[in-house]
Amino acid sequence: MELKHYLDRLGALDLSKMYNGDFFLTWEKSDDEIEAVFQVADALRNLRERNISTKIFKSGLGVSLFRDNSTRTRFSFTSACNLLGLCVQDLDEGKSQIAHGETVRETANMISFMADAIGIRDDMYIGKGNSYMHEVADALTEGYQSGVLEQKPTLVNLQCDIDHPTQCMADMLHILHEFGGAENLRGKKLAMSWAYSPSYGKPLSVPQGVIGLMTRFGMEVVLAHPEGYEVMPETLGVAQKNAQKTGGKFSVTNNMAEAFAGADVVYPKSWAPFAAMEQRTKLYEAGDGDGIKALEKELLGQNAAHKDWSCTEAFMKTTRDGKALYLHCLPADISGVSCEAGEVDASVFDRYRTPLYKEASFKPYIIAAMIFLAKCKNPAGTLKALEARARNRAFVE
Amino acid sequence: MELKHYLDRLGALDLSKMYNGDFFLTWEKSDDEIEAVFQVADALRNLRERNISTKIFKSGLGVSLFRDNSTRTRFSFTSACNLLGLCVQDLDEGKSQIAHGETVRETANMISFMADAIGIRDDMYIGKGNSYMHEVADALTEGYQSGVLEQKPTLVNLQCDIDHPTQCMADMLHILHEFGGAENLRGKKLAMSWAYSPSYGKPLSVPQGVIGLMTRFGMEVVLAHPEGYEVMPETLGVAQKNAQKTGGKFSVTNNMAEAFAGADVVYPKSWAPFAAMEQRTKLYEAGDGDGIKALEKELLGQNAAHKDWSCTEAFMKTTRDGKALYLHCLPADISGVSCEAGEVDASVFDRYRTPLYKEASFKPYIIAAMIFLAKCKNPAGTLKALEARARNRAFVE
Amino acid sequence: MELKHYLDRLGALDLSKMYNGDFFLTWEKSDDEIEAVFQVADALRNLRERNISTKIFKSGLGVSLFRDNSTRTRFSFTSACNLLGLCVQDLDEGKSQIAHGETVRETANMISFMADAIGIRDDMYIGKGNSYMHEVADALTEGYQSGVLEQKPTLVNLQCDIDHPTQCMADMLHILHEFGGAENLRGKKLAMSWAYSPSYGKPLSVPQGVIGLMTRFGMEVVLAHPEGYEVMPETLGVAQKNAQKTGGKFSVTNNMAEAFAGADVVYPKSWAPFAAMEQRTKLYEAGDGDGIKALEKELLGQNAAHKDWSCTEAFMKTTRDGKALYLHCLPADISGVSCEAGEVDASVFDRYRTPLYKEASFKPYIIAAMIFLAKCKNPAGTLKALEARARNRAFVE
Repeated sequence: MELKHYLDRLGALDLSKMYNGDFFLTWEKSDDEIEAVFQVADALRNLRERNISTKIFKSGLGVSLFRDNSTRTRFSFTSACNLLGLCVQDLDEGKSQIAHGETVRETANMISFMADAIGIRDDMYIGKGNSYMHEVADALTEGYQSGVLEQKPTLVNLQCDIDHPTQCMADMLHILHEFGGAENLRGKKLAMSWAYSPSYGKPLSVPQGVIGLMTRFGMEVVLAHPEGYEVMPETLGVAQKNAQKTGGKFSVTNNMAEAFAGADVVYPKSWAPFAAMEQRTKLYEAGDGDGIKALEKELLGQNAAHKDWSCTEAFMKTTRDGKALYLHCLPADISGVSCEAGEVDASVFDRYRTPLYKEASFKPYIIAAMIFLAKCKNPAGTLKALEARARNRAFVE
Repeated sequence: MELKHYLDRLGALDLSKMYNGDFFLTWEKSDDEIEAVFQVADALRNLRERNISTKIFKSGLGVSLFRDNSTRTRFSFTSACNLLGLCVQDLDEGKSQIAHGETVRETANMISFMADAIGIRDDMYIGKGNSYMHEVADALTEGYQSGVLEQKPTLVNLQCDIDHPTQCMADMLHILHEFGGAENLRGKKLAMSWAYSPSYGKPLSVPQGVIGLMTRFGMEVVLAHPEGYEVMPETLGVAQKNAQKTGGKFSVTNNMAEAFAGADVVYPKSWAPFAAMEQRTKLYEAGDGDGIKALEKELLGQNAAHKDWSCTEAFMKTTRDGKALYLHCLPADISGVSCEAGEVDASVFDRYRTPLYKEASFKPYIIAAMIFLAKCKNPAGTLKALEARARNRAFVE
Repeated sequence: MELKHYLDRLGALDLSKMYNGDFFLTWEKSDDEIEAVFQVADALRNLRERNISTKIFKSGLGVSLFRDNSTRTRFSFTSACNLLGLCVQDLDEGKSQIAHGETVRETANMISFMADAIGIRDDMYIGKGNSYMHEVADALTEGYQSGVLEQKPTLVNLQCDIDHPTQCMADMLHILHEFGGAENLRGKKLAMSWAYSPSYGKPLSVPQGVIGLMTRFGMEVVLAHPEGYEVMPETLGVAQKNAQKTGGKFSVTNNMAEAFAGADVVYPKSWAPFAAMEQRTKLYEAGDGDGIKALEKELLGQNAAHKDWSCTEAFMKTTRDGKALYLHCLPADISGVSCEAGEVDASVFDRYRTPLYKEASFKPYIIAAMIFLAKCKNPAGTLKALEARARNRAFVE
């Protein structure tokens, strides 16, 4: 594909609200804005593959804040910043004075004098992560408006308690590439299904983000889970509304077989019940260690009752031509490999290994595109200028 | 202000000793050298605000070594290095072989083969931090002279037991901006006052650095603290000498009201008595855990007897027109916010929030200026060349 | 030396297999390839010393993975990456999901979407480090071939259980500089000798790497150690074969005096017996804490019986003209300085301090050369283009 293709599409979109903006939840973005992220991600990849540097910054920081362990998200964010010319400085709360009661507003400004982007992952506690991100973004906006900050750093949600936009948009861009574009998705069936895992407390942001985003493309999206594994109610409403608007369908079932039957895309993945995560958040707030242990035991027991919710070869056979596209945010709990019984059969996972890695490879580009769109008033013009400037990413012979 | 303004000033200063030098204590620097740091800091900011890249390095490391937790200083140093094109590599003693008895001389050379700057924060123990920095700088000078190092990394004191030059110079540059230049400071009154905090053992480097620097501008500087909270005696001598030389005044009082009365600038901040910090250092050396606990208890008790030393609205009313410029190195202990009773009333702090953040925003530029001046024989010429080169910091449309 | 000198040599070498390759063990490389690393290292240094930027990357990551504490290797790798324009992102297993059982293959791909180089230090367990590196490199090659990765990151062995190629090649380049070229090494005697240290369990990769590399230059290489301190048998075979091929000599002795007598180069250094390290690896696998403690006690006792194996002034007198070149990978255990009795007399170490630091200064260039050679089809052409491009590393006046 020539770069011009992406520029033409970008030129037709209304991106006026993205400039100097932030990225919290996909459903807060217009269809134009969502498409722009995909187009810019593809355009940046196009340039890099042709060894053309996409560095739009000669200096500037990308600040990362991870409230949970992270390998792939950390590398995705660093890769995205590096691709644009930003240097990552991690805000490690263990090492910083934040731990000693410093206010969010103050810290947000103190770390941002030369920051162009801030990526935050805060998915552990219900009702906390997303609101914390808004606190930070509000502080940065205020700091910029009052002249404290010379630029407005853009905040990228690297996973919160509600949505996981960089993951789900990477998943979606993968689908778009596999199916040859949005125009081929109408009527396709996608099953976002709970799957058994021997660990407990996996975040809800992926299933919630998937039903919140994938329902925007006229597909038939089915959310499947055992009774008791309900997701955050608001996200069901988002999915319903999206489906209605695009002429697609959205439904919830407690039957995995029903979800998989004839599916074009399957996304089997474990998560914890929203109600249990709400309870856990309260227990942590109360410092109730015994309560947390009791809840953990209860949840593991509840999980164990649903070992049949697994992406087996048998289930895969029931999908469209037995060849549904298998998705996962990785790492997956693979039966007989990473655990005795898990989310997916080893043979299924093996067959989809290369597509799964490609799915993941979109994430750095998605993050870079989100930053890019917040930094350029005229994204298409900037991309064109980068191509014209034609600096080699690797100056090698 | 046009860049030419800064270049003209710089051109009139004798900076011959700054090239390939280090920055330990402000009072070791001539008036010309102090002014140069301010001029270069402002000039770098001028260029950045006009989206002109100030990257003077295409490659090179800035090494950071923090012997204490740090958020803002870490980000200031990283921002400064990034602004000049240096990549920060942290020397984490916890992870390094330093912890296992490696000599300072050897480590200093081993980490510096491609280092252009080294920033060290070491403020915990009296008589240690500054002398450690000299050990490092001496090793680097020797390494450079003997041909081991291809360049002489410049050492920047990011806080030691004696002075906190990057903080105090950022504070001073803020004062200069607020009052419209050094020529407007003659006769102005600055109160550097102890203030109550429920924590103990806060470093002395800020009050010592403030009286050591702010007495150079013809101001009336008053150091106020309760009896028993004396600072390092040598720094009193420095302040006295500075005041005499510039026709200003320097005095010490045990009366906060006296210090605040009619003040143009107030800097109320907690610190630990110098004598107690000396004692603590000895207890740590002796590994006397019980002694340390006893000292801590004693100091907290001593602090608690002075809760009336707080920057209240009532005290602020007594300053010049009730509108003295309130300074703090942050984070402050805010009464009713970060603690029950602390250094400052919440309403006072809130009113000065934006100026306080601006005060902090100078620090990355101060650090960058210190590095810049050690790297350029002709700083004005280099700044002029950067403006002429006119590379966009952000290449965006 | 003019750059042309290095380019001419490079032009005469067969480097066809280095492009897109990895660097595991020196004896897996041809003589041409080994020489190329030296020539490129010197050429990069030549350019840097003339203030010419050697940045061949405008963006890209260098990933570091250290399974052991490290200061100098960490800084060497960061320096090398920085010199070429790569930004280092550390893969900290403590912080990452690797610790939770993620597979090597998956992680290798997930961190490499924008990685051009990966440096790994994994020297703790016999039979593990090198094989782990191969697992990673195989995964990256597969990822590249299947289109998951846009580029093939080159893997650099920063120390494994078998070899320490970046260290030994830095040592060798130092020898080449000290002796004025490979043509002057024929018949020179090098003593790689065990030396007493009060610590136990020092890695074998240095002595193994030294006998595996230094036997390629027609020298007489003597490996000396007390009975019971044998190295990995395979590496003896490598040394033997090298010596035969180049007309040099290789021998093993249990007599330090014999090794030092008339030596031109001495490398006295402690290491643990290979058999004991094998045993330790098994004890760790079995989680046998008591066994590990018992082994440690036994090894320390065994060491203590050989305190006379120390690089004393008396031993140094027996070398060629009493002036053999003293080598060490640092840090050394210096008698009376870092320990009561150790590997070397303080006066010997002091006399060689500057050469020792210079020896270490080659490592960043060696690492950079290894990466450079894996990235450039035409290394000489790229170096020439860098000189012609003539961008200042430091843009200062």
